[in-house]
Amino acid sequence: MHWTADVRALHLARTFTIAHSSKDVEQVLVVRLEHDGITAYGEGAPVDYWGETPASMLAFVESAAVRDAVGRDPFDLEAATERLAALPGNTGAKMALDGALHDWVGKRLGQPVWRLLGLSPVAPATSFTLGIDTVAGTEERTRAATAFEVLKIKVGGPDDVARLRAIRALSTARLRVDGNEGWDIATARELMPLLVELGVEFVEQPFPAGDLDSYHRLRELPRRVPVLIDEGCRDARDVARVATYADGVNLKLAKTGGIREAVRAVHVARALGLIVMLGCMIESELGIAQAAQIASLVDHVDIDGHLLITGSPFTGLELTDGRIVPADRPGLGVDPV
Amino acid sequence: MHWTADVRALHLARTFTIAHSSKDVEQVLVVRLEHDGITAYGEGAPVDYWGETPASMLAFVESAAVRDAVGRDPFDLEAATERLAALPGNTGAKMALDGALHDWVGKRLGQPVWRLLGLSPVAPATSFTLGIDTVAGTEERTRAATAFEVLKIKVGGPDDVARLRAIRALSTARLRVDGNEGWDIATARELMPLLVELGVEFVEQPFPAGDLDSYHRLRELPRRVPVLIDEGCRDARDVARVATYADGVNLKLAKTGGIREAVRAVHVARALGLIVMLGCMIESELGIAQAAQIASLVDHVDIDGHLLITGSPFTGLELTDGRIVPADRPGLGVDPV
Repeated sequence: MHWTADVRALHLARTFTIAHSSKDVEQVLVVRLEHDGITAYGEGAPVDYWGETPASMLAFVESAAVRDAVGRDPFDLEAATERLAALPGNTGAKMALDGALHDWVGKRLGQPVWRLLGLSPVAPATSFTLGIDTVAGTEERTRAATAFEVLKIKVGGPDDVARLRAIRALSTARLRVDGNEGWDIATARELMPLLVELGVEFVEQPFPAGDLDSYHRLRELPRRVPVLIDEGCRDARDVARVATYADGVNLKLAKTGGIREAVRAVHVARALGLIVMLGCMIESELGIAQAAQIASLVDHVDIDGHLLITGSPFTGLELTDGRIVPADRPGLGVDPV
Repeated sequence: MHWTADVRALHLARTFTIAHSSKDVEQVLVVRLEHDGITAYGEGAPVDYWGETPASMLAFVESAAVRDAVGRDPFDLEAATERLAALPGNTGAKMALDGALHDWVGKRLGQPVWRLLGLSPVAPATSFTLGIDTVAGTEERTRAATAFEVLKIKVGGPDDVARLRAIRALSTARLRVDGNEGWDIATARELMPLLVELGVEFVEQPFPAGDLDSYHRLRELPRRVPVLIDEGCRDARDVARVATYADGVNLKLAKTGGIREAVRAVHVARALGLIVMLGCMIESELGIAQAAQIASLVDHVDIDGHLLITGSPFTGLELTDGRIVPADRPGLGVDPV
């Protein structure tokens, strides 16, 4: 098995602002795997809040330890996943390798990955993300998002209340809110009645991942929407911990290190009665295609990363009735542009 | 998709006695699935302690509700599994259907099921089961079991202490004990020091599944071996409950309703830090081949059901160095004799 990797710059159609950061370009890692006459691809986005960078991803996938961990047989996914998981960090880079291995197996057997996993290509509609902006900018973004029946609203700016009311006034979409660790318990007490009033489905990661005290206090509020954990939940073991302080998880392949661990995490969450959401980073159609293979397993889908960029280096995904649909083609079903 | 089913009598080589029952014959269900020119097979054993019988299994797989639940596409395993799980009981019959669907997919793609699942065919050595017997009978059974590096001893008779000491005196095998719900807390207090002294690895299901009080009291004993739950653990959701009162689970395809839910249950158990064992019922090489596909995922293997019978109606499994090895052939890798 031989692979090469390179860092690709994805240009955002609009500046993307969340609670603690703002960006116009995202850099992702693309792995090109060659084995037994088949070329396969996988992509991963860096998890910057865990210290991952494009440079660390590249160094990781080119290291001897990773070559040993992946092994010689793309079918041997369990052993490769376990060995990769034992290497620290770089979950985005692991996502790229896991994606390329799945793409290879699907192409080798002439089947889409979702079919090999026993799944359906039909998943819940994806939400579309509205980054932090002015009220006027938010209104403009809302008017441009009529193709989507669910909106995910990033909060943490000075105009959150006015923005939420403006969106609700303009749109009948289902709404979700993402705090990206930007709240404290006082913010939660202030905003929660508004979220209930506006019929918001849930709030993601309101407090910092380590601030469990605020999560426990939030559960005591008389009226609240469910709380899902994103930055505080990496893999299946973390899911078990989340069950002690929140209502659900936002799983992302960049955090789990790919499809295989994400599927496990879904089943752990189900067994524990948690709400399950599948999310993404800013990714091209290649990275999103990896998530799309398993999106039918979850309650809520938020895999719109490729819709926020211009000039995707891969193509092949469909957007039908607000749903991201993976192709009925071997492997991940996307090709380089 | 079309299938037929029939009940097969498996004749035990020796009378098989556990805490509450004794038998010389076991009846299992074999499903023969025909679709798109491929013939596939699956087997399931009735879970008698949950009220399943050969007659109920046969009626189940021949019902219109089950035909609707399985659907029209053998690849669509997730949806079929969810719909079957929604029908009450008959987990052994569900195991037979799940096995036939997996066999079909493997044959269709020309790959063994273990490879399609990303797994290795190499698993931990299986234990060999010694049913309840006299001391002399137990000694004779022990001498006949030298091919196995692990012995699982059924207890619940009058000679348990003498039998355990006799086995330890004759054999260097690793030992496990199975109470099959036959103990009370007084029995546990009496026997636990002996189990510790003899180096027994763990005890399975000492108390009735509903007697959680005894499980909690057992955890307070100063010296004890780990406790695994069998009769009290059906599927992935039950695994989450077991984590509150025991140390591990014995998963069986006849309880989970097949391979797909068993894999999920393994991952839930792992995420919760539980010991994971894969067990079986009295089954032919067909039923055991279904378990053997996923045996590499677990800590402890006890899939010797086919070794306790004479005249298996299916063949194809290997026993190598005490390990049950599924064939490197498409599907489950077994054929009718």
